[in-house]
Amino acid sequence: MVKTDIEIAQEATITPITKIAEKIGLKEDQFELYGKYKAKIDVKKISGDKEGKVILVTAITPTPAGEGKTTTVVGLGDALNRIGKDAIIALREPSLGPVFGIKGGAAGGGYAQVVPMEDINLHFTGDFHAIGAANNLLAAIIDNHIFQGNELMIDNRRITWKRAVDMNDRQLRHIVDGLGACVNGVPREDGFEITVASEIMAILCLSNDIEDLKENLANMIIGYTYENQPVTVRELNAQGAMTALLKEAIKPNLVQTLENNPALIHGGPFANIAHGCNSVIATNTAKKLADYVVTEGGFGADLGAEKFIDIKCRKSGIRPSAVVVVATVRALKMHGGVPKDQLGTENIEALTKGLPNLLKHIENMTTVFGLPTVVAINKFPTDTEAELALVKTECEKRKVNVVLSDVWENGGAGGEELAQEVVRLADQENHFSFAYPDEYSIKEKISAIVEKVYGGNNVQFEPMAEREIAKLEKLGFGHLPICMAKTQYSLSDDQTKLGRPTDFSITISNIKISAGAGFIVAYTGTIMTMPGLPKKAAYEKIDVDSSGKISGLF
Amino acid sequence: MVKTDIEIAQEATITPITKIAEKIGLKEDQFELYGKYKAKIDVKKISGDKEGKVILVTAITPTPAGEGKTTTVVGLGDALNRIGKDAIIALREPSLGPVFGIKGGAAGGGYAQVVPMEDINLHFTGDFHAIGAANNLLAAIIDNHIFQGNELMIDNRRITWKRAVDMNDRQLRHIVDGLGACVNGVPREDGFEITVASEIMAILCLSNDIEDLKENLANMIIGYTYENQPVTVRELNAQGAMTALLKEAIKPNLVQTLENNPALIHGGPFANIAHGCNSVIATNTAKKLADYVVTEGGFGADLGAEKFIDIKCRKSGIRPSAVVVVATVRALKMHGGVPKDQLGTENIEALTKGLPNLLKHIENMTTVFGLPTVVAINKFPTDTEAELALVKTECEKRKVNVVLSDVWENGGAGGEELAQEVVRLADQENHFSFAYPDEYSIKEKISAIVEKVYGGNNVQFEPMAEREIAKLEKLGFGHLPICMAKTQYSLSDDQTKLGRPTDFSITISNIKISAGAGFIVAYTGTIMTMPGLPKKAAYEKIDVDSSGKISGLF
Repeated sequence: MVKTDIEIAQEATITPITKIAEKIGLKEDQFELYGKYKAKIDVKKISGDKEGKVILVTAITPTPAGEGKTTTVVGLGDALNRIGKDAIIALREPSLGPVFGIKGGAAGGGYAQVVPMEDINLHFTGDFHAIGAANNLLAAIIDNHIFQGNELMIDNRRITWKRAVDMNDRQLRHIVDGLGACVNGVPREDGFEITVASEIMAILCLSNDIEDLKENLANMIIGYTYENQPVTVRELNAQGAMTALLKEAIKPNLVQTLENNPALIHGGPFANIAHGCNSVIATNTAKKLADYVVTEGGFGADLGAEKFIDIKCRKSGIRPSAVVVVATVRALKMHGGVPKDQLGTENIEALTKGLPNLLKHIENMTTVFGLPTVVAINKFPTDTEAELALVKTECEKRKVNVVLSDVWENGGAGGEELAQEVVRLADQENHFSFAYPDEYSIKEKISAIVEKVYGGNNVQFEPMAEREIAKLEKLGFGHLPICMAKTQYSLSDDQTKLGRPTDFSITISNIKISAGAGFIVAYTGTIMTMPGLPKKAAYEKIDVDSSGKISGLF
Repeated sequence: MVKTDIEIAQEATITPITKIAEKIGLKEDQFELYGKYKAKIDVKKISGDKEGKVILVTAITPTPAGEGKTTTVVGLGDALNRIGKDAIIALREPSLGPVFGIKGGAAGGGYAQVVPMEDINLHFTGDFHAIGAANNLLAAIIDNHIFQGNELMIDNRRITWKRAVDMNDRQLRHIVDGLGACVNGVPREDGFEITVASEIMAILCLSNDIEDLKENLANMIIGYTYENQPVTVRELNAQGAMTALLKEAIKPNLVQTLENNPALIHGGPFANIAHGCNSVIATNTAKKLADYVVTEGGFGADLGAEKFIDIKCRKSGIRPSAVVVVATVRALKMHGGVPKDQLGTENIEALTKGLPNLLKHIENMTTVFGLPTVVAINKFPTDTEAELALVKTECEKRKVNVVLSDVWENGGAGGEELAQEVVRLADQENHFSFAYPDEYSIKEKISAIVEKVYGGNNVQFEPMAEREIAKLEKLGFGHLPICMAKTQYSLSDDQTKLGRPTDFSITISNIKISAGAGFIVAYTGTIMTMPGLPKKAAYEKIDVDSSGKISGLF
C-alpha cells in the first residue's frame, strides 16, 4: 500500500534545526528557534562568503494530471547534496486555505518533502497571520479615517484596499460593511481576499530589507479621492505600525528536507495577480550560504518563469544560472487531448500533439530569456519507451537534454542525473535577458510578453484598460514591470486551449497598479482572489489525537 | 524625565528563556523555544512535584484614574522571589486591538513588567492568530454548508457564530456578506468580533487538555435550525480541523519579568461576555512548578474575582489561597466624586464617600468567597498620611490589612511587604465557597450574584431573557454557571453609579449560551464585542528602525 505524504513525513528522522543551521555555517546568534525544527534567520547578522548559483525550476502548462514542480525542487536539492554540492532549496510557504479546501498541503510529496510538514502547512512561523494583521490594520485605519471626518477626502466607492483572511471563504468575497447606524462606521461595498493575494505579501517577497519594506508599504495606493487622486499609505501614516507587525515575518524560515538538507521557506504570493515567487530575502540569503540555490515560480513557465525573471530578477538583481522545466508524459498527453482516465495507455499521436506545449516553454527559456535549460520528466510506471524517446528527440533538436527523475519515489537518489545536468548547465555561458526593457510603454511591455512568451499574435485592450493605462502613465508608473493575471491552464487567455495554441489574441480587460510591490497587474478576465470550500472538503478528515499528533492532512 | 514602559523594557537585562526554564526545573524536552526569550511548555511531559498556592489579584471597580492590577501581579511575583519564595506569575495575553487603539500594550508597567514587551504585545507566539483561524475556519464551514445544500437546515437568520479578527475595526461590527450572485455564497446579516471575544478563546482557557479542548469545541452551538433547534460544531464535524489549528496555541507561554523571574502568559478572554482569566492549563502548570502562583481576573472584583471563582475554579478545581485587592487613593477619591484633574489634592470627604467601593469588594472576598484577603494600595506621591490612615482604619475594621506597594517605581523591592502579608495569609485557614451552587436555577444563580456580590436588591428579567432561560433549561443547560456581561465601571449595571451603590436592581436583557465554554452569559444591556479605533490612535506613533527595534509602543 502506498503511504500518504503525512505518513512518510511523520516516519522521517528529523534532525534538530540547530544541526541544519550549523551545517550551513550559521552561528547561534544568527538564527532564532521556533520549536525544535524551525528557525528564523536574522539576515542582518549574516555575511556569508558564497555566491550561490540560482537554479529556477518551472513547468509546462499545468493540467489535472499534475507535473510535480515543488517535488522536483525538493528532490533536486537533495540530489545536489548527494552528489557532494552545497545546495539549499528556497520555496514558498503554503496558505491555510487549500489545506482545508481541496488541494491539501504544499510541501512537496512522496520522498521529496520538506518537514515538519504539519507545521509548515499550519501557521508555520506565523508569517501569513502577520501579513493578514498588517493588511487588516490598514483596512481598519482607512475606515477609521473616513469615520473620524475623512480629512483626505477618500471616496469610499473607490477604495481598492480589501480586508484579508487566510482561509477559503467565498461568503466574504462581496460584503457591505459599516452597517448599523452612525457609531458603527460608514456603509460601503467591501470584500475580503485570501491573505496570499494581499499586496503586502508581494511586497514582503520583493523587499530587500526592513527599510525597503517600510518604504514599499508607504507607497501602496489604497484608493482614490472624490477627485480621483490616489491615496497612499504614507498619507495615512500607517507604514510604521504595519512594519512593526511584519518585523519577524520578513526573516526567512529555515527547515529541512526528508534527507535533512536545508530548506528556506518564505513568502507565498499569488501567481496571477502577483508574481508567485518566494521572497528575495530568502533567495539572497540562500545564495550567501550555499553554492546552489534551487527555487521555483508559480504555475507554468509562461507565468512563473516569466515573472521570476521580469519582476523578481529585475527588482533584486538575482540572475538564474540554469532552468529546469518539469513535465510528465501523462500531462503532455492531456495537452494532446487525452482525458484523465486514459493517460495510462501509450498514445504517440496525442503526445505528438501535446508536446509542443513543452517545446514552447523550453524555447522561451533558451531563446527569450537566454538561459541554459534541461527538461526533467517526472517518471510514471505507465510511460513507454517510445513516448520517452519522442520527448527526448524533440527536445534535443532544440539543444535541450531530457532527464528522467523519480524523486517522488526515491528522494534525492532519484534526481542525481538531473543534478549532474544542472551542475553542467550552471557552468555554461548565460545570455540572460528580460522579455522587455523598463523603457517600453505599458502596452509595449504587455505585447512583448504576449508575442514572445505566449506566442500570441496581438493584444486587445478593452476601454477600461485603456483608461487605466493612460491614468497610470500620467501618474508616472509607466516604467514598472507587468504582472500578467492570466489563466494558468493555457498559454493563451482561454483555458480550453491546451498544447501550444497559435493565432490567438489576448484581451486585457483591466489594469491595476500595485504601487507598493512595484508592478502593474494586467487582467485577462476575472481573477478570483478568494477561493471557496468544496462540498467534500479536506477539513473533515483532519484530526488530532491526545498527544497532539495530526492525521488526515492531505 | 520619566521613562516610558518600552524604554524601561528595552533597557532591561533579559536572560535567555532557557535559563528561566532551567530555574523552574524544566528539562530540554519539556519546552520549545520561540526565539530566544519566549518558550512554549509541553505540558504533557511535565510531572512537577509542587502544589503551588494560588494568589488571586483583583481590584476595586476601575476608574479612569487606573489601579495597576497587572503591574501588582508582576511586582508581587518579583517580591515573592526576592523574599526567597518560588513564585510564578500567570497572566493573560494582550490583544492586538488595544495596541493600535487607545490603550497601548498590556504587560504591566514601570519596573514591574514582563518582557520581551514588544513581542508579547505583537503576535507573541501566535496563539490569538490560531484562535482567529479556528474561529474563521468554522465560519467558512458554516456558510459553505449552507451554500452546498444546507443539509442541517441551518436558519441563516439564526446563526450566532461570528467571524473574528484581532483588530479594533468597528466597520466590521455589522455586515451583510454572501453578496454578488449565486457563486459567491448566500446573503445574510453577519458580523465580526475581536478575537478575544470568540468562544474559542474562552474554551482554550477553560480546557484541561487537548481532548477536552476538542470535546468543548464540538459542543459549541453555532446557531439554530429553521425549527429553532441548536446546531453544534459536532454536527458539522469541524472540531478535528479546529483542534489541529489550536494544537500549539493550547501550550502555555513562558517569558520573564524585568527581574528575570518566570511568567506564564496564556489566553485572554473578554471579562464581560467571557470569564476574563488566563488559561486553566497555565495556572495548573505554574502550580506544578512553583510554591506560589500569582494570577488575576479581568476588571474589578465583582466581575474578575467572581468569575475566577464561580467559573474557572468551579470547572478546574483550582482554589485560591489568598486574595489581593488592588486600589489607589486617587481612584477611591474618584469613586467619591472627584474629577480626574483634581485627584492630586487631599480630600478626606471624597475618600470617605468612595472608600465603600473597596470595602464592598473586600467584604465579598472574605464573606462571600471565604478567602484571606489583603488590600494593596498602589502608592502615588500625592497620597497624604491622613488619606492612607483612613483606608487602613476602615479595612482593619473588617480584619483586612492594608499594605502600600510601589512596584511600578521600584519593581519587586516595592512589593516585599505585600509579599510577606500574602505568604502569611496563604497559610491561614480558608473557607472557600462559591457564590451559588450548581443546582440553583439560572434565575437563582443570577440573583445570588446580584444580591451577594453586587449588593443589589433584585433582578428584572426582560421578556427575551425569560424566553431564553426557559429554552436553555429545557435544553438541559440549567446546571451551567453564569457569566455576567455587565459594565465594569459600577457594581450596578449603571456605569454612572460609582462608589458602593445601594438599593438598585439589575436588568437582564438577554441570555446566551456558550455551550462549548460551558457557561451562560447574562447580558445587562449591550456589550460591544468589536472595539473601534479612536481619532488619535496609538498606531501613528509606532515605528521600527532598520535594526528591527520598535518605538512608540505605548
